[in-house]
Amino acid sequence: MQSGDSGEDRFIARFFRPIAGSAAALGLMDDAALLAPPDGCDLVLTKDAVVAGVHFFPDDPPASIARKALRVNLSDLAAKGAAPLGALLAIALPKGTPDAWMEAFAAALGADAAAFGCPILGGDTVSTPGPVTISLTALGSVPKGGFVPRTGAGPGQAIVVSGTIGDGALGLVLRQDAARRAFAGLDLEQRGHLLDRYLHPQPRLALAPVVRAYATAAMDVSDGLAGDVAKMLRVSGCGGRIEARRVPLSAAAAAVVAAEPALLATVLGGGDDYEIVACVPHARLPAFAADAARAGVPVARIGETRDGQGLDVTDAGGRPLDLGAGSFSHF
Amino acid sequence: MQSGDSGEDRFIARFFRPIAGSAAALGLMDDAALLAPPDGCDLVLTKDAVVAGVHFFPDDPPASIARKALRVNLSDLAAKGAAPLGALLAIALPKGTPDAWMEAFAAALGADAAAFGCPILGGDTVSTPGPVTISLTALGSVPKGGFVPRTGAGPGQAIVVSGTIGDGALGLVLRQDAARRAFAGLDLEQRGHLLDRYLHPQPRLALAPVVRAYATAAMDVSDGLAGDVAKMLRVSGCGGRIEARRVPLSAAAAAVVAAEPALLATVLGGGDDYEIVACVPHARLPAFAADAARAGVPVARIGETRDGQGLDVTDAGGRPLDLGAGSFSHF
Repeated sequence: MQSGDSGEDRFIARFFRPIAGSAAALGLMDDAALLAPPDGCDLVLTKDAVVAGVHFFPDDPPASIARKALRVNLSDLAAKGAAPLGALLAIALPKGTPDAWMEAFAAALGADAAAFGCPILGGDTVSTPGPVTISLTALGSVPKGGFVPRTGAGPGQAIVVSGTIGDGALGLVLRQDAARRAFAGLDLEQRGHLLDRYLHPQPRLALAPVVRAYATAAMDVSDGLAGDVAKMLRVSGCGGRIEARRVPLSAAAAAVVAAEPALLATVLGGGDDYEIVACVPHARLPAFAADAARAGVPVARIGETRDGQGLDVTDAGGRPLDLGAGSFSHF
Repeated sequence: MQSGDSGEDRFIARFFRPIAGSAAALGLMDDAALLAPPDGCDLVLTKDAVVAGVHFFPDDPPASIARKALRVNLSDLAAKGAAPLGALLAIALPKGTPDAWMEAFAAALGADAAAFGCPILGGDTVSTPGPVTISLTALGSVPKGGFVPRTGAGPGQAIVVSGTIGDGALGLVLRQDAARRAFAGLDLEQRGHLLDRYLHPQPRLALAPVVRAYATAAMDVSDGLAGDVAKMLRVSGCGGRIEARRVPLSAAAAAVVAAEPALLATVLGGGDDYEIVACVPHARLPAFAADAARAGVPVARIGETRDGQGLDVTDAGGRPLDLGAGSFSHF
């Protein structure tokens, strides 16, 4: 007599069935999920993997790990102008991972999935002799033809960015070296702001329809503003300039850079921003800004594209800044 | 001056751009892939993760690892009646993984993607201090309403299976203990057959439309025939019986079981079959068998469903067999 109820089934039933909010997951009783895409839409697909000790600290709260794993993918969708349809999760867990860890992870993932309208449709749970490894695939939709590529920028357009830049990267520095003099002037709230921005990206889903309406090219800023913009311009076949003084900073980041100017390189090159950077034709900038404001997302013009190739990041006097490697690379 | 060409970009350009066969991948220059789903279709989504040392041997040929990672997902699609649309790959690699390993992995993945009509649309490549970890998400499509669930079986239906059962599980035993007496009678070709079935699943995509046309419930056999059927019947709310003598065996598997009858438990419970098991109403069996033959896929009736619950696996005399745990579990 076979019960057909394996350890993996019980694991899924305990931790993931409660958070499977959509009929598409078939209560996670199937190996595959079913999803009816909206009529007349294109699908946008993104997949990011994160590894304990590489992309997050092994002792990060499991709720924070879950949120970041989902949100970095939602950030990719937003930058392409897409609305989320759902996500699939694969998680590899070391043997002996406490139940409390999985409970907190799954609860936070479920809460975020509900908050962002991105139901968990299914996935896979396996064991590993290595570190916790999470791979999340998110699906979104855009009206047919509405996908905003990374490759569409042309010369003579404004480079715009949402929110503030550098908080996540400075939050990581703060976490690694809390006694560093650059942070001495920050109050508790400012420190909390930086640490929170590193742990909990805020995907700019509200900006997605605005990006779709106005941007010729867009991407989310994950590996560092300067490097990511350079990448977008390179694949678009044009050059450009970012004026460092125009890059929007939070009060906390501005205070840190004032205390230690060399940290501007971290702000512009550190990554973990999960803001949207886009190119918008100059003539459409006022309408773009008005619609972004209506969507509740602050945006700033930080530079412009030009013929040729390469990206210059310039200081207040128009002189090129040297940011070193400029973009975080996992290799 | 920022080149926007990071190590990760070069890695993707070197190994994955050559195999990105579809416009949907945008040449892998974007963070997200674009896919226009066929009109009037539902999407079928599946995601399986595999870890070196858990799901495959670390010294397996990288080409075999790539093929299995893709094919186990295609097997899930086939069992749901779906045709592949594309796949996304996340791979976590230990530092120092030889270029030759990645070259062989990517080449085989690209060849399989082309052979099975499932283009690689995008993904993520990260480093890990742990073992090679691969998560693959496959998307497929069925005509609207055509998804074949695991939950639709009812009493009084035939249980059918494709191909032969047990070869993969015996291949694993052979690999671990080549000197075992049960294998002594096998010739080189038979040994090769078992080893190959373990390394290289053959997803039954040709059977997908037939499954869609006839099956009330279906799943692929990955964790062991007996356990998987028990699972399907449990979520369908009925019971059933498999007659062990009706389960189709290859000549190699039959010889092994004749030499060591206890290995029947491995055949029926070991898994790694990637065949399709389905329930088909008795009245439709002849038409099902004819269409399966036309698709070039051998199928066999191995039992029937009934009211109640639980699955009995019976021997030639109708007596229940005890298969022990019965289903491979990753926990």
